[in-house]
Amino acid sequence: MTDLAVQFDDICLAQSRIRPYARKTPLLEDATLNRLTGGRLLFKFESLQVGGSFKYRGVLNAILSLNPETRKRGILGFSSGNHAVALATAARILSVPGTVLMPSDAPLAKRQRAAGQGAKVILYDRDKDDRELICSEIVDADGVTLIKPYDQAEVIAGQGTVGLEIAESVKEANASPEIVAVPCSGGGLAAGVAVSLTADLPRARVLTVEPEGFDDTRLSLETGCHQRNKCLSGSICDALLVPTPGQLTLPLLLARDARGVAVSESHVRFAVATLLQTFGIVVEPGGAIGAAAFLSGEVKLEGRTAVVICSGGNIDRPMLLDCLDEGGVA
Amino acid sequence: MTDLAVQFDDICLAQSRIRPYARKTPLLEDATLNRLTGGRLLFKFESLQVGGSFKYRGVLNAILSLNPETRKRGILGFSSGNHAVALATAARILSVPGTVLMPSDAPLAKRQRAAGQGAKVILYDRDKDDRELICSEIVDADGVTLIKPYDQAEVIAGQGTVGLEIAESVKEANASPEIVAVPCSGGGLAAGVAVSLTADLPRARVLTVEPEGFDDTRLSLETGCHQRNKCLSGSICDALLVPTPGQLTLPLLLARDARGVAVSESHVRFAVATLLQTFGIVVEPGGAIGAAAFLSGEVKLEGRTAVVICSGGNIDRPMLLDCLDEGGVA
Repeated sequence: MTDLAVQFDDICLAQSRIRPYARKTPLLEDATLNRLTGGRLLFKFESLQVGGSFKYRGVLNAILSLNPETRKRGILGFSSGNHAVALATAARILSVPGTVLMPSDAPLAKRQRAAGQGAKVILYDRDKDDRELICSEIVDADGVTLIKPYDQAEVIAGQGTVGLEIAESVKEANASPEIVAVPCSGGGLAAGVAVSLTADLPRARVLTVEPEGFDDTRLSLETGCHQRNKCLSGSICDALLVPTPGQLTLPLLLARDARGVAVSESHVRFAVATLLQTFGIVVEPGGAIGAAAFLSGEVKLEGRTAVVICSGGNIDRPMLLDCLDEGGVA
Repeated sequence: MTDLAVQFDDICLAQSRIRPYARKTPLLEDATLNRLTGGRLLFKFESLQVGGSFKYRGVLNAILSLNPETRKRGILGFSSGNHAVALATAARILSVPGTVLMPSDAPLAKRQRAAGQGAKVILYDRDKDDRELICSEIVDADGVTLIKPYDQAEVIAGQGTVGLEIAESVKEANASPEIVAVPCSGGGLAAGVAVSLTADLPRARVLTVEPEGFDDTRLSLETGCHQRNKCLSGSICDALLVPTPGQLTLPLLLARDARGVAVSESHVRFAVATLLQTFGIVVEPGGAIGAAAFLSGEVKLEGRTAVVICSGGNIDRPMLLDCLDEGGVA
């Protein structure tokens, strides 16, 4: 296990670092949804995290791991959305200069939220510009530190703190989950949570949930090696479009025997509407896909208990209205 | 003080009774809204309570105060909304037969939520039927116990537990509020919270917030005696249309030197949109009116700290869309 990027203790250290700045998000359940799914479903609302997603935890931990000199020079991140918002927010809160590189087609809500935090937002064209090149130019010119969206040990450890909170909250709720369902893109959250469960919830298995056609993690877990998506765009789950799992995240998921599942877009819309109608909480499509796996019946609970991470809530208004048109469980 | 209906100790007792069944709801703040209002605004999201409003606390405490024999015979409540939903939910969770009497023009979301919990829902015509008569007939026939929406000591004490949680959470947030703004109808929440603050936040003063034209509490606090609203309907704040403060609640508010303010409907819509856009949390118009008082500038923060209770989230879809049309702080 020592060749793995993140150990349980790294997550405990991350938790002690980020606690003064991050929220402990609520774990909620609803009797109607439990009846509907025939088991017990507990929803971890990371959409209520500072910055509107779990990404804030990983960025916080990465910044707080830097030495003061390096930190002062500033941080840089590339992201179409939640990582950018998280980086901008954490930079403001820790008084560190922040720069984010975002594709020009990133959702408006996410671009506005990043800029609103006072970060320098640089837009690039997904098709024409070379993101890596722009990044390395900025790093060279400004001496800033790049914080990756998922394939970095401190980021994965920060995301793992979600799992420590789940372990605390299920104890209070007298629940013993067999499954922890995690919306999955590069795998930072899923890998961090998988490691975090080893101490207090060793029975719980991580289930990665991805959009149909973008299920590189599911395929990679099944084959034991990196698989790639054919498409790079074209899903309402804008947060979940990474082409292949991370170099650090996949080994962690394999070591913890995670499994994957894919869910259709219409089920995702239904889940967004259901979460809004049931809990009054806005979850973006990519954040609701774990819930969609169970609410759609794609994964049957059959008397079992699952925790579903609702990982983010930054959604454009037209998309929210579109999902509400789908209707959900009232 | 001994002639007052509720003492601080009653609220502590209520908290110990309801804790296994009620959620501790989050107290959240946002840097952009703090900048906008020039102070520190902390939002207590009781819309995330079981049943979607603070009303659940009062009903729980009232049921748990009954002796086992009485409890078994069942409970009855009259309400156009959140008290009905809360009563139905608490009845199901405590396995007590529940009956709710609702006006036929109550919001659909609230009627459906009450019925969905398995309660017996009896609709009556606001204009033609005598609600008191129907109630007393049911009590006589079924031997059930009436739980009033606000003018009952156990209910007020239950609502006061919101204030105990606020005192805990502001300590964690290093905040020291001068004001606790409370959406106000019959005054159960405002009175309970006013009493609850005496021990740990003696500096904090309750500010009741009501819709323009329905500000009976504001007028009653100013004159020191019960005043009545001229209108009984016609506000988007369907939860806040009681004609005059309760017999038990007004003396409690006067004893704690509470003040009142009234807010326009367009400011309420703006607050609903802002809370959704900022926190991703749905708050109904009546629940958002406390936030509206500050976001509109009606009450100036001027460097002070205020806690705003967002008291409920049960809203019909068309009303939510209508409020979103108003736009808010993005």
